[in-house]
Amino acid sequence: MATDPSPGLERVRVDRPGRGVEDDWVAVEEPLEIRLDDEPLVVTMRTPGRDRQLAAGFLFTEGIVEGLDQIEAIEPCVDPMAYDPDNVVFVRLREDAKRHRDQVLKVRRDFTAVAACGLCGKARLEDLYQRLPESRPLDVALELLRRLPERMRRSQALFDKTGGIHAAALFDLDGEMLGLEEDVGRHNAVDKLIGRFLLDGALPLEERILIVSARAGFEIVQKALMAQVPVLGSVGAASSLAVSLARDRMALYSFLGNGRGHRYV
Amino acid sequence: MATDPSPGLERVRVDRPGRGVEDDWVAVEEPLEIRLDDEPLVVTMRTPGRDRQLAAGFLFTEGIVEGLDQIEAIEPCVDPMAYDPDNVVFVRLREDAKRHRDQVLKVRRDFTAVAACGLCGKARLEDLYQRLPESRPLDVALELLRRLPERMRRSQALFDKTGGIHAAALFDLDGEMLGLEEDVGRHNAVDKLIGRFLLDGALPLEERILIVSARAGFEIVQKALMAQVPVLGSVGAASSLAVSLARDRMALYSFLGNGRGHRYV
Repeated sequence: MATDPSPGLERVRVDRPGRGVEDDWVAVEEPLEIRLDDEPLVVTMRTPGRDRQLAAGFLFTEGIVEGLDQIEAIEPCVDPMAYDPDNVVFVRLREDAKRHRDQVLKVRRDFTAVAACGLCGKARLEDLYQRLPESRPLDVALELLRRLPERMRRSQALFDKTGGIHAAALFDLDGEMLGLEEDVGRHNAVDKLIGRFLLDGALPLEERILIVSARAGFEIVQKALMAQVPVLGSVGAASSLAVSLARDRMALYSFLGNGRGHRYV
Repeated sequence: MATDPSPGLERVRVDRPGRGVEDDWVAVEEPLEIRLDDEPLVVTMRTPGRDRQLAAGFLFTEGIVEGLDQIEAIEPCVDPMAYDPDNVVFVRLREDAKRHRDQVLKVRRDFTAVAACGLCGKARLEDLYQRLPESRPLDVALELLRRLPERMRRSQALFDKTGGIHAAALFDLDGEMLGLEEDVGRHNAVDKLIGRFLLDGALPLEERILIVSARAGFEIVQKALMAQVPVLGSVGAASSLAVSLARDRMALYSFLGNGRGHRYV
């Protein structure tokens, strides 16, 4: 047997009629606990391997940190007594970022009972919409956009093996791919991608195109807008709230593929 | 223009090259706030129309209520001064169910800061795994299972219009469909379905087959196990944690379709 080629892949045994039991690969899904300044912040089901990028992106797209200069350190858990140290990441903020952190978290903490699915602890409708930075739609040729899913498909290494894991990729306005991230959660794929460019000091993403392999829902559009992405395309459908949140803020396309795809107007 | 045929559909305008701007449909995504005994519990992005079923199913699959007899009432919000009354549902428990409610919520509330994506407020790894009722895998003919996605496909009314919304359907062991629910969130589709059978007094689902249109992740398997479903099939892939949680508890199949699909062993 070959060794596992990636922390994102796990070998399983499947029973296929006519072929019997054989090896196959599935995408790894494991919980990641993000601790912010030593307090438990969130647990998200993610594909391991890019925890720094994921933690940075999550904090940024949730509005808890406003930029790279607010982050002091992102470190793995090295406590051998911890419950599951491989699945914990510590983020420490600079002193002057803690007031903003407390303001953002206070709104949620005061009212959170059990908290939320896909909404990261927002237990009241009033807390759903984040304050978004300014952004405007950018016009890009549809013919260019329609070619991008095929380009990103060639780099979806975990999808090649498993047939089932989301991807998010960033392109420049000429259609050159600048980065791609994969994850079992589509919001995590976007957070990893934005976190990677945050850590590289490359935000905001004002002249960039974001393509997601799945559907475009409210939280994907909101995360993209936090990074000021002006063009978002999804291979799958868009939801009503994605369309209305995107309006006048970004160009939103769905069902992108060879010869397919349209823009919401 | 026809009137909207369903609360789950919204008309949008799309620009298609060569055809210009025309009408299209997208699936409605709106936040639902569930208030439990007058306390904000959770906000989930859902497709409207089955809020009673969704709230009942969520409370049950999260382990907050253990059965229909613990629910006093599920009621819409009728307060005209509320922030967004159409997107609020009230659940009231019977007096003798409140001790259990408090025990389950206390574990989370004590440690929840911002809370979780898809994990409903679990901010610590220790809180991730719920206490599951007993269940065992059931053997079903693969040829039968492979026909079920096509059967459920004929009833996916919102998918027909939008091309992008998840579905979950319940079948008996002869492959007869007993119910189908659609939602922009795959976990919500499962909660609506389980909630519907809970409200009908038809739990546990020990002799039933659950089919989901999307991938099978940890939270889908956990929800199904709470209802003691012995056979789960997904049209998409399964994750590593779905496979390991299902082992010895249910029969898990993925990539189901005509002539396709295998079981994890």
